[in-house]
Amino acid sequence: MPATQAETTAMERALSLAARGPKGVNPQVGAVILSPTGEVISEGWHHGAGTAHAEVDALSRLPEGSARGATAVVSLEPCNHTGRTGPCSRALLEAGVARVVYAVADPGDTSSGGAAWLRAAGVDIEPGVLADAGTRLLDSWLTVQRLGRPHVTVKWAQSLDGRAAADDGTSRWITGPAAREDVHRRRAEADVIAAGIGTVLADDPALTARTPEGALREHQPIPLILGRREIPDDAAVRSHPRPFLHRRGHDLSAVLAELSDLGVHCVFVEGGPTLASAFVRAGLADEMLAYLAPVLLGGGRLALDDIGVSTIRDARRLRTVSVDLLGDDLRVIARPAATAEPTKGE
Amino acid sequence: MPATQAETTAMERALSLAARGPKGVNPQVGAVILSPTGEVISEGWHHGAGTAHAEVDALSRLPEGSARGATAVVSLEPCNHTGRTGPCSRALLEAGVARVVYAVADPGDTSSGGAAWLRAAGVDIEPGVLADAGTRLLDSWLTVQRLGRPHVTVKWAQSLDGRAAADDGTSRWITGPAAREDVHRRRAEADVIAAGIGTVLADDPALTARTPEGALREHQPIPLILGRREIPDDAAVRSHPRPFLHRRGHDLSAVLAELSDLGVHCVFVEGGPTLASAFVRAGLADEMLAYLAPVLLGGGRLALDDIGVSTIRDARRLRTVSVDLLGDDLRVIARPAATAEPTKGE
Repeated sequence: MPATQAETTAMERALSLAARGPKGVNPQVGAVILSPTGEVISEGWHHGAGTAHAEVDALSRLPEGSARGATAVVSLEPCNHTGRTGPCSRALLEAGVARVVYAVADPGDTSSGGAAWLRAAGVDIEPGVLADAGTRLLDSWLTVQRLGRPHVTVKWAQSLDGRAAADDGTSRWITGPAAREDVHRRRAEADVIAAGIGTVLADDPALTARTPEGALREHQPIPLILGRREIPDDAAVRSHPRPFLHRRGHDLSAVLAELSDLGVHCVFVEGGPTLASAFVRAGLADEMLAYLAPVLLGGGRLALDDIGVSTIRDARRLRTVSVDLLGDDLRVIARPAATAEPTKGE
Repeated sequence: MPATQAETTAMERALSLAARGPKGVNPQVGAVILSPTGEVISEGWHHGAGTAHAEVDALSRLPEGSARGATAVVSLEPCNHTGRTGPCSRALLEAGVARVVYAVADPGDTSSGGAAWLRAAGVDIEPGVLADAGTRLLDSWLTVQRLGRPHVTVKWAQSLDGRAAADDGTSRWITGPAAREDVHRRRAEADVIAAGIGTVLADDPALTARTPEGALREHQPIPLILGRREIPDDAAVRSHPRPFLHRRGHDLSAVLAELSDLGVHCVFVEGGPTLASAFVRAGLADEMLAYLAPVLLGGGRLALDDIGVSTIRDARRLRTVSVDLLGDDLRVIARPAATAEPTKGE
């Protein structure tokens, strides 16, 4: 049975509950329990690794027996495995839930299958409700699950005509304060911020996440410098509140694998046309975050250079996720068109 | 006295009436006559050179004497000179109009001054009502009046990262059908479509305005080829329904002056990065019309090349007029920020 209006509304609520949980190793998940007549009788969300999953959190707030015949609306497919917590599929069945509506299928090797298990046990299942919004929320977590590596956002700022700087290298400021604030907010959401050694030597960026007033934000990404050359003794990145990583190799996949082992989920690639192009060329850019300033520069300082395309058939086609005006600048968020739903091994 | 709600509504109507008139040597103007109590009692618009101006057209539909004490709402300041028709300022006064509300001031050397003349004669005057919309409507006409040369739109299509083609020169199709249709519709509104000889030799464009089905649109712009080299005997432009112009000189101002003498108001610059960059470099691009496809190309085939900017301080700052999604592509319309309201001699 397709989702009712009450269930769709409950899913919107579940998604906003999910966002209350921490971003991290575990997914952000929200759940709403509806009575057989469609009334909200409980809510819950996942509070972080080692705590109850969202469904169990919601069920735990109900007197025993009162979920009988209820519908559970969950932003992620109920898990089917016993980790630090028991499987949610079993908890839902034992509580007497008659129907489960979820947004995003669990892509995990060990955790998936909850929906199939519940269906086999006679529970009515409706998958894919507000799947797009659910997928957006779980973004980096899904990348980690599917590809076994961190989610990579490649950010650049450019003139409308694709330049990162004027011919003499000057570039401050191409984009305006609203775009810069947006960047710093996103830096604070990332686990790692990556820059090329060329950018470190040329621009000496602090690689911190700051407020418009210049104060450090609460969460700081770990700075990662890529490239052979040495980091100068007086480089600003040496004063970063978190110790930096410096990797000299050119194998970006190996670097991402190492970051994965460190528990890194989100990498924000910010530093320079060379590094941005390398991630795009390697097919490792899950999201492009481009800020386009209403300015023309011409000349040879391109925001992206060689991305490995020589003929139009090989063009890196993108799927535009959003286009927004931030002050005078355009923010374009896009993803690879062909690999919107990549799976392991592809 | 600021415009009343009835007057603003009447101005919206006047602007839509104006658009019924032909684009050409004369401006598109609309007029609405309101009774002293704010009721619409007549409407008119300018039907083209040699016919009554909008105000006179509207007054002519009223019984004599019935405009006494009325308000004339006009999209362009009433003219003050006797051309092929008498001055509108006098006609309004003689009809007994007590108040004139207009959107755009008449920038003409000989025709302006109507508002001042009416005010001196005791008529209440309110300028600048919906001035932005009025200015947009009169776009190319205002450029001709202010700068004494045709209005120039520089169009290009690019990948998000500013390339016009892949490295091997292939580019069909970077943008999608909706963007291409938009381009052809705009070609049909232009008097002249300009392309560089390099583009003619490389791509052999027809430079016609076509429907999505490939049929010729009713109005075709005159093709103008710029550059020293010869146009091949079998070039598609030789089959254009209108005879082409070929100018070999590099002085774009001189070319525009010649077009002005031919009665040309709108030039649509479409053919190639070299010509587009030349117009931008010369400060002769009144409007940039950029279609950005959601694709990355990298490499050396830039949509704009040398526009004469070497340091960030000289960047060509733009004012974004509109950003729209056409199919999967972004259409960005922008104008030079500093010269949004250029005056003669600047």
